[in-house]
Amino acid sequence: MTMASRVLLVLAVALVAAAGSCSASWELNIRMPTSASQRLHAAMEDGAVHVAPLIHALRPLLGSGGEMGSLGGVACDSWLLGVEAHNVRGWKTIPAKCEGYVGHYMLGSRFRRDSKVVIDEAIAYAEGLKLAGNGKDVWVFDIDETTLSNLPYYATHGFGAKPFNATSFNAYVLEGSAPALPETKRLYNKLVSMGVKPVFLTGRTEDQRVITETNLRRQGITGWMNLLLKQPGFKGSAVAYKSGERQKLQDAGYAIVGNIGDQWSDLLGAPEGSRTFKLPDPMYYIG
Amino acid sequence: MTMASRVLLVLAVALVAAAGSCSASWELNIRMPTSASQRLHAAMEDGAVHVAPLIHALRPLLGSGGEMGSLGGVACDSWLLGVEAHNVRGWKTIPAKCEGYVGHYMLGSRFRRDSKVVIDEAIAYAEGLKLAGNGKDVWVFDIDETTLSNLPYYATHGFGAKPFNATSFNAYVLEGSAPALPETKRLYNKLVSMGVKPVFLTGRTEDQRVITETNLRRQGITGWMNLLLKQPGFKGSAVAYKSGERQKLQDAGYAIVGNIGDQWSDLLGAPEGSRTFKLPDPMYYIG
Repeated sequence: MTMASRVLLVLAVALVAAAGSCSASWELNIRMPTSASQRLHAAMEDGAVHVAPLIHALRPLLGSGGEMGSLGGVACDSWLLGVEAHNVRGWKTIPAKCEGYVGHYMLGSRFRRDSKVVIDEAIAYAEGLKLAGNGKDVWVFDIDETTLSNLPYYATHGFGAKPFNATSFNAYVLEGSAPALPETKRLYNKLVSMGVKPVFLTGRTEDQRVITETNLRRQGITGWMNLLLKQPGFKGSAVAYKSGERQKLQDAGYAIVGNIGDQWSDLLGAPEGSRTFKLPDPMYYIG
Repeated sequence: MTMASRVLLVLAVALVAAAGSCSASWELNIRMPTSASQRLHAAMEDGAVHVAPLIHALRPLLGSGGEMGSLGGVACDSWLLGVEAHNVRGWKTIPAKCEGYVGHYMLGSRFRRDSKVVIDEAIAYAEGLKLAGNGKDVWVFDIDETTLSNLPYYATHGFGAKPFNATSFNAYVLEGSAPALPETKRLYNKLVSMGVKPVFLTGRTEDQRVITETNLRRQGITGWMNLLLKQPGFKGSAVAYKSGERQKLQDAGYAIVGNIGDQWSDLLGAPEGSRTFKLPDPMYYIG
């Protein structure tokens, strides 16, 4: 069964259920415990996951991924949180059963809302900066899944459920058609207006310089100070590469006032930058 | 038309269309775009949050917090993700409107499921360790919201929506009644069985040593190597305190093979430990 038909099936089931009553899609979970503390202690001690507190009177059981996986196996929402908090590391593909969840996450409103919180924080932080104002204040931006989105590619390649295919991905990159992430663009423009200079630091390779610049410009992104791409022959890890480049910036007298990426490997390794921001990316992991 | 009235319109249309009592809580979101790529580009470029992709056929609008706040103001689920990924820092209380969301999160199944993913990762990591086996392998555990849960206290104090009250919180600590977090206990027991020695490193103060030990033992937690509490007169930050204590362990010849806490300040600052694990805590922030 294809994903689309599976979704239609779920939709049909939900509609049938809705025609009758609510109870197919909602667990009416209104146990009335005698004492709040009893309830809490019982919940903590029995080790089970079926905690049923008073305030959780309505809990969606069907729908776009809310509780999926909670009854054994991988909980995709918990897996995503684990990825974002850097607890889940070194994965090659997303859990097979989470393709639908990640698809919903990326294409629905959630990814955009989550990104908005990150960017709002970054802008609030930027507004509070005391800048040197000597043209040496820089902000490091990653490119893929940070400034440009490869969602058009990943949406047709299982949202990370399939192993990375360098050939097809590089062909996509060479189209130069990746859309800008609107939230990041908002931060970028804000920083430029403040006199903070954007530095792109990307795992893309030197041979992709022209198409990368073209893609950025097509998306209305201009005015960066530098575009740092991986040089031929570099063998180290992403952390070694990116922290090394940041060190060079610092050694050249620049102050890295901020650093934003979608991978923890964009953000770890001294000098990290005065503050780091992690955009969500449940589609792939770069260690 | 404002965003809110547009939403009400969608909701009203859904109500009428569904002709049932239940479907008020579902947005029937079945736009059929002519091309996936058109849809994606439109979604990315228009800067709006109302992305309506095909696969997102059912999206809960009401219920226990799923999409709350997505239509302006704070999105509590996005805020929580921002906290866990260390994007949202330095907050004194949770957003007022998120008290219900955080309550659901903590008392419902989500907190437990999210914790389970973290602990499953930690155990998988531990199982892959090559231990020195000389009695010098240690794992650092934070206590509050890591080993013991103060949820019984926070559930009656707004889940972090009210400013921290040291008097009432310390009175609660002195009861010695905090339940153990079952997932952490599972990791703890696993490590002890492997010969890795647990070290508690807590912001609790030296005068709380006896009640803390009593509370841990009451919860079946025994066999730790050391319980490190904050000494009277210490003035530094949480990161300075905890990294300093880890440094002392390392200087004494111990290998910190792992480190787990609910606060980023438990995990940042060299030496962090060979690997760190962040348990969820949307109730308070310690910088």
